[in-house]
Amino acid sequence: MEGKGISQAVIRRLPRYYRYLGELLEDGVERISSNDLSKRMKVTASQIRQDLNNFGGFGQQGYGYNVKYLHSEIGKILGLDREHNMIIIGAGNLGQALANYTAFERSGFMLKGLFDVNPTLAGVTVRGIEIRMMDELKSFIRNNDIEIAILTIPKTKAVAVANMLVENGIRAIWNFAHTDLNLPEHIVVENVHLSESLMRLSYNVLRYEEKHQKKK
Amino acid sequence: MEGKGISQAVIRRLPRYYRYLGELLEDGVERISSNDLSKRMKVTASQIRQDLNNFGGFGQQGYGYNVKYLHSEIGKILGLDREHNMIIIGAGNLGQALANYTAFERSGFMLKGLFDVNPTLAGVTVRGIEIRMMDELKSFIRNNDIEIAILTIPKTKAVAVANMLVENGIRAIWNFAHTDLNLPEHIVVENVHLSESLMRLSYNVLRYEEKHQKKK
Repeated sequence: MEGKGISQAVIRRLPRYYRYLGELLEDGVERISSNDLSKRMKVTASQIRQDLNNFGGFGQQGYGYNVKYLHSEIGKILGLDREHNMIIIGAGNLGQALANYTAFERSGFMLKGLFDVNPTLAGVTVRGIEIRMMDELKSFIRNNDIEIAILTIPKTKAVAVANMLVENGIRAIWNFAHTDLNLPEHIVVENVHLSESLMRLSYNVLRYEEKHQKKK
Repeated sequence: MEGKGISQAVIRRLPRYYRYLGELLEDGVERISSNDLSKRMKVTASQIRQDLNNFGGFGQQGYGYNVKYLHSEIGKILGLDREHNMIIIGAGNLGQALANYTAFERSGFMLKGLFDVNPTLAGVTVRGIEIRMMDELKSFIRNNDIEIAILTIPKTKAVAVANMLVENGIRAIWNFAHTDLNLPEHIVVENVHLSESLMRLSYNVLRYEEKHQKKK
């Protein structure tokens, strides 16, 4: 999915702009030049200008960016100006950890329900949200206008559950299960493969050590 | 950090090759052509050949790849043939969820300790690993040959704790705190910014809907 021809590399960077602009806003900064933003974010000023030009610019030559306006416009591009209803499937440690992230709600991501197969969790609440059993899932999705499902279940169950979610109208899956879901093209999938992230870290440690040893 | 001139895009993909090869190995597959691997992984065969050529190939024309050999070689490239000692700083929900991931240990990532500032957690164990208070941290890092620290603490504390970890010899930080750490070049940082991942998902949902509405 390319959406208006914006590359995924630019999309990767947008939330980081949003974060830095949010921090500037909290600090009471009203305007910032691409040079100053560049120093803070440790990317080149030309990269910043190029990235933001994808969305029509926002800056006036010599005046810098209006922080509040740019923050709000990037928020709109990211869909943060409206509410997204979510459910979590898998109320284990990770599912409960995500359920406790109040920061998501401040960006419009509203957790409406938690689901699990473990009967000892039935009726337990996390931040006031009840853990339900899977037999309630279909009707819950339909009755609560659920857009996003967060999958924090073992990979052996993930594909079947994802297919069932799609059949019941889910638009997007935030997938923490360590497998590829291979869903229809109209379903947005964002994977968080934690062990792959840890392997990249290990790769980079090893390469650094090799480089360093060669220099000795 | 570029290590041997391999691009970060290739490094991003390596753990996925490792996962697919591991699954083939479990299924008893001994050899696979780049075409068959391409169908499974839904990337082009030429991309696979190009990626693996970065590390000297591994395949013989017409014979395909030896699954066990390729899996083991990619494992070595990723540093999975040796042990990495880790600690978690922040034994809240997310820290405890990560502590419960036994899959990390199967790849050589050994969790040695958990640390927190909350005195009610002192002495509590997760999978037999004791939660310790921060005053023990420095000596623990030195005495247990700790290479990787996992940061699951609020962003307001993350920069100070990261600097202290670096002073005490930590080589790499797996950062879940929603801030940039700006550490010296020789420290490897792998960020997992969950809320940014969720924003990319929301961006892609929105773009898909816009595209779809235009077509109507």
